[in-house]
Amino acid sequence: MDCPGCLYMAPRSCKVCERLRMASGSIPSACGGGPFSDTSDYPCMPWFGMDIGGTLTKLVYFEPKDITPDEENQEVEVLQNIRKYLTKNSAYGKTGHRDMHLQMDNVSIGGRTGSVHFIRFPTSEMGAFLALAKKQGMASLITTVCATGGGAFKFEQSFATEVNMKLAKFDELDSLLDGMRAIVQANNPGEVYYWHNPTQEDPEKRPYDFSDPYPFIIVNVGTSLGGGTFLGLCSLLTGCSSFEEAIELAAQGDNTKVDKLVRDIYGGDYERFGLPGDLVASSFGNMCSKDRRQSVTKPDLARATLVTITNNIGSISRLCASNEKISRVVFVGNFLRVNPISAKLLAYAMDYWSKGTLKALFLEHEGYFGAVGCLLKFNEYS
Amino acid sequence: MDCPGCLYMAPRSCKVCERLRMASGSIPSACGGGPFSDTSDYPCMPWFGMDIGGTLTKLVYFEPKDITPDEENQEVEVLQNIRKYLTKNSAYGKTGHRDMHLQMDNVSIGGRTGSVHFIRFPTSEMGAFLALAKKQGMASLITTVCATGGGAFKFEQSFATEVNMKLAKFDELDSLLDGMRAIVQANNPGEVYYWHNPTQEDPEKRPYDFSDPYPFIIVNVGTSLGGGTFLGLCSLLTGCSSFEEAIELAAQGDNTKVDKLVRDIYGGDYERFGLPGDLVASSFGNMCSKDRRQSVTKPDLARATLVTITNNIGSISRLCASNEKISRVVFVGNFLRVNPISAKLLAYAMDYWSKGTLKALFLEHEGYFGAVGCLLKFNEYS
Repeated sequence: MDCPGCLYMAPRSCKVCERLRMASGSIPSACGGGPFSDTSDYPCMPWFGMDIGGTLTKLVYFEPKDITPDEENQEVEVLQNIRKYLTKNSAYGKTGHRDMHLQMDNVSIGGRTGSVHFIRFPTSEMGAFLALAKKQGMASLITTVCATGGGAFKFEQSFATEVNMKLAKFDELDSLLDGMRAIVQANNPGEVYYWHNPTQEDPEKRPYDFSDPYPFIIVNVGTSLGGGTFLGLCSLLTGCSSFEEAIELAAQGDNTKVDKLVRDIYGGDYERFGLPGDLVASSFGNMCSKDRRQSVTKPDLARATLVTITNNIGSISRLCASNEKISRVVFVGNFLRVNPISAKLLAYAMDYWSKGTLKALFLEHEGYFGAVGCLLKFNEYS
Repeated sequence: MDCPGCLYMAPRSCKVCERLRMASGSIPSACGGGPFSDTSDYPCMPWFGMDIGGTLTKLVYFEPKDITPDEENQEVEVLQNIRKYLTKNSAYGKTGHRDMHLQMDNVSIGGRTGSVHFIRFPTSEMGAFLALAKKQGMASLITTVCATGGGAFKFEQSFATEVNMKLAKFDELDSLLDGMRAIVQANNPGEVYYWHNPTQEDPEKRPYDFSDPYPFIIVNVGTSLGGGTFLGLCSLLTGCSSFEEAIELAAQGDNTKVDKLVRDIYGGDYERFGLPGDLVASSFGNMCSKDRRQSVTKPDLARATLVTITNNIGSISRLCASNEKISRVVFVGNFLRVNPISAKLLAYAMDYWSKGTLKALFLEHEGYFGAVGCLLKFNEYS
C-alpha cells in the first residue's frame, strides 16, 4: 500500500502518488519518484525542515539531484549559492555541523529526487544563523519555514523581523513520529538497531527489522532529566564546554568511585531482591564524604553524571512501557549521539530489569526526526 | 481485633495478648499494657532496634518507665548508665542526635510500659559507636541486636569482634512496613499528614486518618536517586558539609536560574500538552552556558539539586502508582527530614500530574520505621 519510491509512509501524503491515484483511480504500488518536469505545484526551493530545540537546532535540507542543465541555467543565483554553501562543507562556522554520515541519497520528495542533508547548530547561535540567512538572501526565496520544537514559538518573531519568514509551527511529537516513520521505511532495516547480548561484556550492534513497527513506545531523550541535564551538570562538575568533551571525559572515567554501590552498603549482594553488589545504590552517594570528593577525577564525575542520567531514563522508560504493556522501546534524541555508553547501558537496563521482556531499540538518525517531519510537512503545507 | 494497648498491629505478635489468649482462649480487645511483674520470658534490657543505612544509622531505644524501686535497686549498674546516658541528652558527641520531638510516651512493648526514643548518627561513625558501646559495657548485657539495612550485613563482623554481639538481620522492607504499621496505629491520626491544596501558594499541613490504610504504595526515599544523591551532588556543587546545610542553602536559592524552563524553550506555555511556562523542561539545562554558570549562586545550585531529585522521585512514584492502580502514595525516608520544600513539591507534583487522582502522604517519624520494625522483632525474636 505504501509508496516505496518516496519518503512518505502513506501514499496520500505523496503528491506524486496522489496524482497517479487521481489519474488512474488506484493507489500505485510504487510512484517511481523520478524527476518531475512540472514542479509548479510544489513549493519553491530550497526545501527545509527545522527542529529548534532547547539546546540544538536541527535543520534538514533537501538537495535536488535531478536538476537538468536547463533548470540549472534558470536557477536563481541565490538558490545556487545556498545549495553550494550547504553541500560543500561539513562545518559551518565554529558551531554548525553537517552530519555527512547520515546523508541519504536517491530520496524522492514532492516529485523530486535528491539527497537529504542533516545539519545541526546550537540554538544559542540562532542570531548568527538568522544573520547568515539574511546575508545570503534567503528571505528573497522563502516565505515560510516549517518548524517544530520550542524554538519555533520562541523565535517566531525573530524570523519575521530578521528575514521576513513566517514559521509554520508543527507539534514536536507529531513531527518526530512522521519523520521517524518516513526514515525508517526508507532505510529499513539499516536504520533501526539493537544491542545483542546487552548484559554481556561486549554487546554487538545489530540491525533490527522494523517493517512491522506497532506497537512501540518512543522515548525522546532531551527533556527534564535528559541531555541538557547531563551537559549542564557535567559542565558544572568538570568545567567541560561541549557535549563531545563531556562524553569523552565520561568514557575515561569510573562512576563507581562517585556512586555508592549496593556492596558499599551491604558489603556484597542484596540477595532478597537479587541486587548484585556492583549495582548503583545511590548515584553520587560517595560524594557526601569530603575525602572521597578529593579523590575523584573529572572523568569519574562525568561518567557518574552520564550513568545517573541514563539509568534514570531507563527506569522511567521501563515504567512507562510496563504501564502500557508494550515491549519495544525506541530511544531517540541527540543525547544518544556519539554516546554508545548510554545506548548500551539503556539496552542493559531494559533487558536486566524486565528479565528480557523489554527490547531497547535505537535509530541511526537519532536526533533528526522532528526536522524530517517538518521537511515532509513543508511539501504538504505549501 | 487489634490490641490497642501495645505497639503491635496483630495480637499474635504481642506476648501480653498471647498470654491472655492462651489463658482465656479468646483474643483480648485490649491487653492493658501496664507494668508486668514477671518479665522472665522477655529479653533482657536494653531493648533496641537498628536500621543501618548507607548514610544514616537509625537506633530506636525503648526506655521502661514502669520500673519499681525494687527493680531499680536490682538493675545492674551498666544498664542504669546506658539508660541515663541515652535519655539525658539529645546530642551524643558531635554527630549523634536524639530526635526529642518524635519521642513516644506511654507505649507498651512486650508487657512493659515506657518511652520510645529515636536516635540517629552517620553510618560513617559506626566505629565510634561500637567503641562507645564497648566502653559502656554493652557487650555484658546484650548478645543479640536486631538490625536491618545494608549495614546489618556490612558491619556484622565488626559487631561480633568489637562488642561480641550477634546481629539478627531482618529485611529492610519488611521491617519498614512492620514499624510503620505499628507507629501509625499508635499515633493515628497524628502520624500521617498531607498538604492541603498542594497546587496553591501556601499549602496547609493536615492530619490524615490512616486507620483504613490499604491499598497504598510506599516510597522509601533513599536509594538510587534519593537523599544520598542530593547530598552528594550538593556537596560537590556548593561545598556544603551536611544535609541540614544543604537544605538551608536550597531554601534560599532559586532553581529557575539553573534549570531551563518550558518558557526558556517555548517563550511561554507549551499549550498542546498543557505545560505551563514555569515548569522545568531541563534540570540544570541552563548550566550548559558558561555565562549562566558564572551568574548562579550556591543556593541556586542547591535548590536546583533538591528540585531535580524531588521531581524525579515524584515522576517515578507516580508511574509506579499508575502501574499498580493505587491512589495513595506514602513517602518515607530521611530525605524528607527538615525538608518541607520536597514534601510540598511531591504533594504538588502528585496532585498536578495525576489531575488530583493521586494523594501524597507523609509520616512524622519519616526515617525511623525500619528501626522500629527491628525493635518489635527484637521482642519476638529473643
